[in-house]
Amino acid sequence: VRKRRLGGWGFEGERYDASPALLAWLRERLGEASPLPATADPGAIPLPDARPLPAFSLPASTAARDRLFHARGQGLPDLLRLRAGRIPAVPDAVLRPGDEADVAAALEVCAGAGVRVVPWGGGTSVTGGVNAASGEAPSVVLDLERLAGLSGLDERSGLATFGAGTLGPALEGALAPHRFTLGHFPQSFELSTLGGWIATRSSGQESLGYGAIADLVAGLTLVAPVGRLELPAMPRTAAGPDLRAVVLGSEGRLGVVTRATVRIREKRPPLRVTGTLLPSWEAGLDAARAVLRAGLPLALLRLSDETETEVGVTLGLRAHRLLGAAARAWLAVRRVPERACLVLLGAPGDRAGARAVDDAGALLREHGGVGLGDRAGRRWQADRFRHPYLRDALLELGIAVETVETAAPWSRLAPLARTVRSAIEAALGAQGERTAVLCHLSHPYRDGASLYFTFFYRSPADPEAGVARWAAVKRAATEGIVRGGGTVSHHHGVGSWHAPWLPREIGERGHRALVAIAGSLDPEGVLNPQVLLDPVDRLDRG
Amino acid sequence: VRKRRLGGWGFEGERYDASPALLAWLRERLGEASPLPATADPGAIPLPDARPLPAFSLPASTAARDRLFHARGQGLPDLLRLRAGRIPAVPDAVLRPGDEADVAAALEVCAGAGVRVVPWGGGTSVTGGVNAASGEAPSVVLDLERLAGLSGLDERSGLATFGAGTLGPALEGALAPHRFTLGHFPQSFELSTLGGWIATRSSGQESLGYGAIADLVAGLTLVAPVGRLELPAMPRTAAGPDLRAVVLGSEGRLGVVTRATVRIREKRPPLRVTGTLLPSWEAGLDAARAVLRAGLPLALLRLSDETETEVGVTLGLRAHRLLGAAARAWLAVRRVPERACLVLLGAPGDRAGARAVDDAGALLREHGGVGLGDRAGRRWQADRFRHPYLRDALLELGIAVETVETAAPWSRLAPLARTVRSAIEAALGAQGERTAVLCHLSHPYRDGASLYFTFFYRSPADPEAGVARWAAVKRAATEGIVRGGGTVSHHHGVGSWHAPWLPREIGERGHRALVAIAGSLDPEGVLNPQVLLDPVDRLDRG
Repeated sequence: VRKRRLGGWGFEGERYDASPALLAWLRERLGEASPLPATADPGAIPLPDARPLPAFSLPASTAARDRLFHARGQGLPDLLRLRAGRIPAVPDAVLRPGDEADVAAALEVCAGAGVRVVPWGGGTSVTGGVNAASGEAPSVVLDLERLAGLSGLDERSGLATFGAGTLGPALEGALAPHRFTLGHFPQSFELSTLGGWIATRSSGQESLGYGAIADLVAGLTLVAPVGRLELPAMPRTAAGPDLRAVVLGSEGRLGVVTRATVRIREKRPPLRVTGTLLPSWEAGLDAARAVLRAGLPLALLRLSDETETEVGVTLGLRAHRLLGAAARAWLAVRRVPERACLVLLGAPGDRAGARAVDDAGALLREHGGVGLGDRAGRRWQADRFRHPYLRDALLELGIAVETVETAAPWSRLAPLARTVRSAIEAALGAQGERTAVLCHLSHPYRDGASLYFTFFYRSPADPEAGVARWAAVKRAATEGIVRGGGTVSHHHGVGSWHAPWLPREIGERGHRALVAIAGSLDPEGVLNPQVLLDPVDRLDRG
Repeated sequence: VRKRRLGGWGFEGERYDASPALLAWLRERLGEASPLPATADPGAIPLPDARPLPAFSLPASTAARDRLFHARGQGLPDLLRLRAGRIPAVPDAVLRPGDEADVAAALEVCAGAGVRVVPWGGGTSVTGGVNAASGEAPSVVLDLERLAGLSGLDERSGLATFGAGTLGPALEGALAPHRFTLGHFPQSFELSTLGGWIATRSSGQESLGYGAIADLVAGLTLVAPVGRLELPAMPRTAAGPDLRAVVLGSEGRLGVVTRATVRIREKRPPLRVTGTLLPSWEAGLDAARAVLRAGLPLALLRLSDETETEVGVTLGLRAHRLLGAAARAWLAVRRVPERACLVLLGAPGDRAGARAVDDAGALLREHGGVGLGDRAGRRWQADRFRHPYLRDALLELGIAVETVETAAPWSRLAPLARTVRSAIEAALGAQGERTAVLCHLSHPYRDGASLYFTFFYRSPADPEAGVARWAAVKRAATEGIVRGGGTVSHHHGVGSWHAPWLPREIGERGHRALVAIAGSLDPEGVLNPQVLLDPVDRLDRG
């Protein structure tokens, strides 16, 4: 069993170092960075004494490592604080319920005693969604790792029931002997859980083929302080408003998702991903839209802008330069511009999948595309769950990597990308810093797509200054997203950090309607009180 | 302009009479029926005096025909009461807002004065969803017919914005010059509105290809007594719980849907529908499931059970016997059983559509299917919006036709169909009556499908006795649906009549969560108070 790292992404022992070419490229764009101080020894981090807690019917761990590991998610300021060993708030105990009755009992105790509760799946939130609440009230984490595993399989209907704490690999592993798959592969796949996917409305990298988690959940059980909400698995219903869609994205505010019945499919051969270069971002947007309109059964379409293509293809993130000199000479003959845009197309590696990729490839060629074959795709696939480790490697060198994401209708995508990029550049410029902003389109739909921005900047050695710089950029980027007509989040969720912008998207009335639902299920307001519905800007305290 | 009929389906002048063969078949099964008394002259129906209303900023019609036409929907007891001229409750006035400000102003007045409000689209509810509320409080209908038409078209994103009062044909008519379609064709298509589809979570007959209205709505505006809720068009979002999915199916309880932005598609040639006979219902279920699992781009799949096939194909609903003697002799040679089951497959009439139908046809043949060609499909298509007129024609003869529908996972469909059929037969048997129950599967999904039951029984001449008989059967059928693990409704909605069973499906906690949302948007509770969330069994008062 691989051990989770404290204060960094993923598992201990994993690394993903930047290529010398990438480091040189970053140095040229950002200036020379100063490495951060070494990561604090977790054993030496001073923790506040655990506040007195009421008696629970299940063990409440107050072990330092447990409290520390469950204090924060995986956002950039979380890493900065954990690296520095300065954690503003830590839960007083970690509870690991073994069944739904344990969850109900724990919630009853917490509601009665005013103890705040953070439900915990994989802890990979990048929105402050699992961070321990500050304030006087004691708080506990409900780690759902024991509510795991396959508990029901209806092969005829293509439905499988899992405990909410089931991790991605365990879920796919339980389905594999039955030759089924869920097909949900977020970047956090190896670390995150079904319950977490539901709570945050996750989308997987193959959402074009399998749908997002909101499409995959047929039924679920939520245990709330007032009791149990069980929504049976139905293929579709007109029995009033869809409460599944209310639990999806509720981020632990309404209750604890304890299990879910998901729509599974016959397993097909692994994804095969091919690369194509398009002459420009604009051509890429047109081509991506044309592929979507054709309704081809692809699993993945991803369009990188010129800068992301330069970093990923020409430089290579690691030692892997994707195109050698010969390939580049060939591209020059084909008159592919220096600053072209990479499109990755993916589909299961069987005949139907190959046909879908071929048909899509033909549409890309109509928009000036030049095929690169499988090499770029193979590289992307090999590293698809490993890219986040690069963030830790660069942070050691004093370079912050942050990502923000949104979605919007096709007609708004090009200006929205410009608005967000400018907002990031301006926020860093105001601090006298430069940045490099990469963007890609993914999770495309007939009516729009997601935009995902990755940007680099120098992070100061002082952790408070690092958080302050991050907060200023994050605020500007989110403001740019909302101003540009994008959604607050396509798949990272709202958490604590996006919460101030939520009312801008759904309005005051919408916000109050959600508060009313929360009030009916959690009248004492003990569940994850600083996320989703609490519109206080906590970025500087991020 | 065709004129809507009062006290019967659809437009004046339309009829759909039963074939002599069908009448003989019904006589054999139900016994001799006695024609109902002639329909009451609308002009002679006594109406209660309009109760005093507060002053509105827009005209409030108190014309008798307006009040009568807007008193009830199109359920069987509605027809019985309207035919008999005995209407238990009638709205005091009909308001026709011209814009969102009118709606907001009317709601403000109503909330302030305790006047109940029934939002009105096409008035085709078959669940008591638009029936005037009984009780002391005055009530008005907000007829949205003036909030109609295309107000925005984003061709690049494939999004169109319409007023909620836009009727089906007007909506498709506005898109046609731009070569787009919404593809939403419920049986009520000619009479119902976009707002009504949203309020009731409607599914169209081609939902397999285009999705249900819940898939087609990208954004919408709801005007509630507390103010305006605007949810922008987004292809997908993880910005918290999806409030669109809360407005969808809210049946006028949360506010008035005033407009919506819908996902449109390039128009393709009209549906081409082909028929295949399967040797049994069980073979048909297996075949339908196999076709769905293959993920073929069909627009429609419909499987009739043996009895519905007998009525539709062998007898013909009207004079149209679908199979002549020669065809039947041929089927005998192919060893198709006498009591076979008809499958209709539909797809747009272009090359891609033809390929989808061919591929699906091959799967049906693997399950023993024998192709019938296009004839059955052409007949179904020609009459697809006209079948409801048959209900009026038979009711004149004293024969009630009622329909109930549900959905469930594939593994539950066969026993669920038996449970519902038995419940209907037993309820009528208890009254000394016989019935004939037809069933078809439609709106299939990977994980399940809808079941739609049509049944016939003799309706007594006395309208109160007619309503009482209907109520007893309806109660038994709905109880059977819920007991058999089906949803309370796949696409008719909850209305007043299914409301007592809603807590059985979503639980007490789910019910209270919906009540809490309603309370936040309509704190005075003036909107459609007897539907959706009011679990009083009003069937006998239906």
